[in-house]
Amino acid sequence: MAKPSELPQFGREEFETRVERARSLMRRNRLDGIVVTSEANIEYLSGFVTQFAWVTPSRPWYFVLPSEGDATAIIPEIGETNWASTSWCRNVQTWPSPRPEDEGLVQLAAVLTAISRRFGRVGFEVGPESRLGMTVSDFGRLREMLPALEFADSTPVTTHIRATKSAAEIDKIRRACQVAGQAFSNLRATVSAGDTEREIHRRFSADLLLKGADNVPYASIGSGAGGYASIVMGPTDRQLVAGDIFMIDTGARYQGYFCDFDRNFSLGEPSEAVRRINAILWSATEAGISAAIPGNTAADVFRAQANVIEGAGLQIGNVGRFGHGLGKLITEFPSVAPNDTTALRPGMVLTIEPSASFSGGIMAHEEDLVVTEDRPELLTERAPREIEVIN
Amino acid sequence: MAKPSELPQFGREEFETRVERARSLMRRNRLDGIVVTSEANIEYLSGFVTQFAWVTPSRPWYFVLPSEGDATAIIPEIGETNWASTSWCRNVQTWPSPRPEDEGLVQLAAVLTAISRRFGRVGFEVGPESRLGMTVSDFGRLREMLPALEFADSTPVTTHIRATKSAAEIDKIRRACQVAGQAFSNLRATVSAGDTEREIHRRFSADLLLKGADNVPYASIGSGAGGYASIVMGPTDRQLVAGDIFMIDTGARYQGYFCDFDRNFSLGEPSEAVRRINAILWSATEAGISAAIPGNTAADVFRAQANVIEGAGLQIGNVGRFGHGLGKLITEFPSVAPNDTTALRPGMVLTIEPSASFSGGIMAHEEDLVVTEDRPELLTERAPREIEVIN
Repeated sequence: MAKPSELPQFGREEFETRVERARSLMRRNRLDGIVVTSEANIEYLSGFVTQFAWVTPSRPWYFVLPSEGDATAIIPEIGETNWASTSWCRNVQTWPSPRPEDEGLVQLAAVLTAISRRFGRVGFEVGPESRLGMTVSDFGRLREMLPALEFADSTPVTTHIRATKSAAEIDKIRRACQVAGQAFSNLRATVSAGDTEREIHRRFSADLLLKGADNVPYASIGSGAGGYASIVMGPTDRQLVAGDIFMIDTGARYQGYFCDFDRNFSLGEPSEAVRRINAILWSATEAGISAAIPGNTAADVFRAQANVIEGAGLQIGNVGRFGHGLGKLITEFPSVAPNDTTALRPGMVLTIEPSASFSGGIMAHEEDLVVTEDRPELLTERAPREIEVIN
Repeated sequence: MAKPSELPQFGREEFETRVERARSLMRRNRLDGIVVTSEANIEYLSGFVTQFAWVTPSRPWYFVLPSEGDATAIIPEIGETNWASTSWCRNVQTWPSPRPEDEGLVQLAAVLTAISRRFGRVGFEVGPESRLGMTVSDFGRLREMLPALEFADSTPVTTHIRATKSAAEIDKIRRACQVAGQAFSNLRATVSAGDTEREIHRRFSADLLLKGADNVPYASIGSGAGGYASIVMGPTDRQLVAGDIFMIDTGARYQGYFCDFDRNFSLGEPSEAVRRINAILWSATEAGISAAIPGNTAADVFRAQANVIEGAGLQIGNVGRFGHGLGKLITEFPSVAPNDTTALRPGMVLTIEPSASFSGGIMAHEEDLVVTEDRPELLTERAPREIEVIN
């Protein structure tokens, strides 16, 4: 196959840098340590790569990173080999899970008791846009087991360090974007009137894998005459007919990193209205890309896009924002939204995602970029100015 | 394509039955209502089908089902069209999310305040094997907003009703099993020595989609000479060589329901040791299938398998159990484990998954079945007695 070879896995220094940054932020946030339980944070800090842990809620997985001293993994016995072959952390405790009466809680409490205390506070994934990877009942039991310890929020640490990507991380996002770009290029050859959204979705998803994606956690598709009903739903069993436009938005993943962008297509010549809306969204995207520079805020990037859309007399889409951070999750901080005043920094990876609502439904464009010291670097191959026509 | 046509979506009666069963269990558990936030429970009770809501933690989604009166969905505005086109529930409130200062909490509190109170208790997904689909901080804030309401555990309701499947649900699991069975049949034609686990995994996953799976949330692969290191990891970049055995275990999904089974292969003729272990695991699976009848417990099904493995002088695998419930999640209640005394009931769908540890690593077999009044019905096409050889 002409497929490029796989990128190297992260080296030890990458993780050392992450741990150091996390510890520095722990001290600033008065935390003696953090406990992470989610795929994104465990993988980011420990290097542990697994599908298994995250597809089933039967067993929790804990990674404890103190601000001083050794990190500890407390994981179900079934995952021991997997841990040893992917993580740098050799300090591993296991228990035979499922064990409903104690899913690793006694061991976790002992580890937390032993970490050196300066602030008496440990962070958990309880804050904005986080999901705790253990049951809330067990979280409550753990609190009762450790009455002298304050359970704080770890997201000021993890969200902040993950928002700025290393060169090696950006390489992986760029690769995910390339793979999806190739699948989009290939799409025109495989779609014709009469296909259902579901059929198009299946072939596109399979093609993403064959072109090098590790998995496809997200691929939405919308279709209709002159617009689609939603940018986040589908596939449905709707059959495409000549004159339809359709959009596919994909979050394909490569080595633990997402792309997130869409492409629009027209089955046959598009209407004048579609051409016009497409041109406005293309220009709004261009304005968003140009605004994604250090010194600007996420809100500035929103405003730049909204100005183009509203300036053309269109209504902005009811999506809540015009882009977001991108990395180990398909949506990360910040939000490209009117009220998010996060200052852009080099290394931030963002999606630029303007949308417009109109009588025919909604249309959206999306590109991925990395903020640099200067002009942003596009990670996606820029969508064509004119909507792509499939005949 | 010769692919069978798609199964029909669930009808209104299916959801009416589910809601009625849930309400009956609410009364038995002294709950005035439940709030569900996870993919499995929202989809199960409301019919809402989406990829979007579950791939990103940026926005929470709430479905409130009181024991009396109308259900209410409180969801981000971006999902309104998707909700309307998939759920039976027409009572929908939205907010423009992301809105960090109030992610639907004020609306959720108002809905909970308005439901009729008999017990003063509402259930949330805080219990065993559940994950709350909102931040723990917001859960705490909601508690403070509703001091007169007791926040209880909803899992006695949702876990119990989901454990017994309807005929329409079983059809979907059977279809997922058939699709995976076809992909396994096709595998021998595509694998040869020199392939990496990753390449095999990509082609197999793509084939699952093309054969009719909607997505492939899980596919592990293990390989080695005479055994593999783990049944839950991979793919790695390990290149297969002649004489290796390998196993693929897949959780492919069709219309919201999983299959979960594996198949073992040998690249060239297997050793006598592999033949013997394979035969023992095949017999252990047979014993587990035979034991999966009403009147027996999940522990009995474990014991039947363990007897065969230990009786042959092998050590049972360090996996924690020999199967589990299967349905909207790849692992559900009960656990086929020594300490799980759940009585089997007709309609329960189980995996039978014996494993053995030995010097060469581990090997596992797995089949899916539904418990009936009589002998269980296999949903997978039974693995061949002898390990399949690829030459």
